[in-house]
Amino acid sequence: MNGLDSAIQNAGAAAYVAYGSSADADVRYLTRFRTNDPVVYVKRPGERGILIIPQMEHERAVRESSAAVITRADAGYLEHIKAGEPRWRATAHMIADLAAGPVLVPATFPLALARELESFHPVILDAAGTVGEMRAVKTPEEIEQMRSVQRATEAAMEHGVALIRGSVPKGGILHRDGQPLTAEAVRTEMHIFLLTRGCRGIDTIVSCGPDTALPHNLGAGPLLESEPIVIDVFPQDELSGYHADMTRTVVKGEPSTEVREMYEAVQDAKALGTSMVRAGAVGADIYQAVVEFFRERGYESNTRGFIHSLGHGVGLEVHEEPSLGPRGGALAAGNVVTIEPGLYYPGIGGVRLEDMGAVTETGFDRFTQYTEELII
Amino acid sequence: MNGLDSAIQNAGAAAYVAYGSSADADVRYLTRFRTNDPVVYVKRPGERGILIIPQMEHERAVRESSAAVITRADAGYLEHIKAGEPRWRATAHMIADLAAGPVLVPATFPLALARELESFHPVILDAAGTVGEMRAVKTPEEIEQMRSVQRATEAAMEHGVALIRGSVPKGGILHRDGQPLTAEAVRTEMHIFLLTRGCRGIDTIVSCGPDTALPHNLGAGPLLESEPIVIDVFPQDELSGYHADMTRTVVKGEPSTEVREMYEAVQDAKALGTSMVRAGAVGADIYQAVVEFFRERGYESNTRGFIHSLGHGVGLEVHEEPSLGPRGGALAAGNVVTIEPGLYYPGIGGVRLEDMGAVTETGFDRFTQYTEELII
Repeated sequence: MNGLDSAIQNAGAAAYVAYGSSADADVRYLTRFRTNDPVVYVKRPGERGILIIPQMEHERAVRESSAAVITRADAGYLEHIKAGEPRWRATAHMIADLAAGPVLVPATFPLALARELESFHPVILDAAGTVGEMRAVKTPEEIEQMRSVQRATEAAMEHGVALIRGSVPKGGILHRDGQPLTAEAVRTEMHIFLLTRGCRGIDTIVSCGPDTALPHNLGAGPLLESEPIVIDVFPQDELSGYHADMTRTVVKGEPSTEVREMYEAVQDAKALGTSMVRAGAVGADIYQAVVEFFRERGYESNTRGFIHSLGHGVGLEVHEEPSLGPRGGALAAGNVVTIEPGLYYPGIGGVRLEDMGAVTETGFDRFTQYTEELII
Repeated sequence: MNGLDSAIQNAGAAAYVAYGSSADADVRYLTRFRTNDPVVYVKRPGERGILIIPQMEHERAVRESSAAVITRADAGYLEHIKAGEPRWRATAHMIADLAAGPVLVPATFPLALARELESFHPVILDAAGTVGEMRAVKTPEEIEQMRSVQRATEAAMEHGVALIRGSVPKGGILHRDGQPLTAEAVRTEMHIFLLTRGCRGIDTIVSCGPDTALPHNLGAGPLLESEPIVIDVFPQDELSGYHADMTRTVVKGEPSTEVREMYEAVQDAKALGTSMVRAGAVGADIYQAVVEFFRERGYESNTRGFIHSLGHGVGLEVHEEPSLGPRGGALAAGNVVTIEPGLYYPGIGGVRLEDMGAVTETGFDRFTQYTEELII
């Protein structure tokens, strides 16, 4: 946790403070504690961070958290409440006593808590996003955890693709057991499969035909013959909290010439992007190279064509640092990123392919092993 | 949305501003838009709120959101970025132009955004938690949605209880098909069942024996004969975002006398709490009545015994306003709350029962219909 200690000292602060539930990836990273309710984390340089929790969570927190654990009661919170202080005030009072000096806080720190804290000590914004930067460089252990989520994700992808592959087209609509095969059914069966692997699928995209021209369209209704079907799945491992993220585009039947050509361009763009990844390479440069490549193939990168970034970091959040977009900075060894070019044309459809892997000193250690097959 | 308009005007503000992904229940409530990435919401009195999103989300947002939708590009964000402003600054600049005056913001508003906004307009904290208060009073439509989540939840509970009921004790451990029946297996099968009903189960508690003495222990490993098994399940409907929340405690075999007596006390406490619910009743009074009732039966409410609050509001969050705890205020018609007394004694075990329903002018419209049966 040396990165955080340096940030505290460079800011002239006495401690770093975070506040949130484990839905806040920074809090989860710093505490390794799962909770639906907000907790407080206080870290002084050279010391182990402290997790402050309600009495009821004490035994579980001691067992599960990587931080030192004390109860709110022991930290003085309940006394402040009994003395009539409102909740944010009492929380700030407790933090101020623990920090005993200026506090460094993340960009998303709650304003109400910051204003109360300011009456005790200066509150300094961590503009550099130190914890996000720390999270972006994965340890070998984190990389193994993410590789394992990726394996479960690929098995779930195969489960979904197999449903489509085994379907029977009738009147332009894919059928299973005589009934239309829907986006919802494929999504639900993939999510069920993921649960049996200890992972949670959320908002998996299974979109088809016109819907594929909108990259974030979840997809709904019967799947269609000879139309692109985009499956984008980014599950979270329930215990570790780490995500994987992958996308494939398939067609049951005969894709149009346009879709076939878009698929080839996207495949080549992914190969190009992947070949440029290594420690020190700049995300924006890789993105621009792909924009340029698409331009040469006759595809725009505006409100149609290639309309999103080339990739993003993955970890405790699906989207985190670093970025492979127009403003992406230098990559570092240990980053885990996606490479996901896509092309989107209303009236024609959309195609996206997405792999995930680790940045190394010399290249891209691709976790994704799943096949690329347009026609299934 | 009159509550918000009054709050804006009472604060002397020109607009209310929220920032976050739809994991932020306030943002989801105000926009009815699902997104993993943060969006901006700006509401001026007498006008429809505005949701500002990336271009890529425009079509979906127009289709799904209850707010007026404009893109970040149309709101000037991209110009500010091109002019070299950092992300928080550019976001604040865009908001300042839309608000055109002092802004009212929620307690959890990101400090970094508030500090940038302050250089344009005064930033006023909404100390009353106006949106939380609005969310706490459900419309008839929201109540119907939650009733439906409750029905799916009860069916999942029955699915889990049936696994335990049908198990075969062998050497003190419950077995299914010759293998130990584990907490993890019951949880996963309940989550799979919930997915088929369009609901997402997260961290469902299936704890047994000593683990039940910790109310938030998730539970792990083989389930035991003649020991209390606590099942606490609080799924979220994937489309509407609303939760249900219920708990039952069961024993396969012969519970100890202590557990049997605790179960009876918890049942009676639930009946007492439920009987006191109505619009105008004070959450803290109901909680205290249950504390007193337990005391008469010989149970503490300290670090052992009844160690959590009696209940809480449920909605887009599992825990929201109002509270039926030591500091709970007056209930209002349309609140949807849980009543969940529990008793926890290390060395003996834990028992909890939890129902959910709506507060009415005259009482408690209980959604929960599921049976209470200790021995199965």
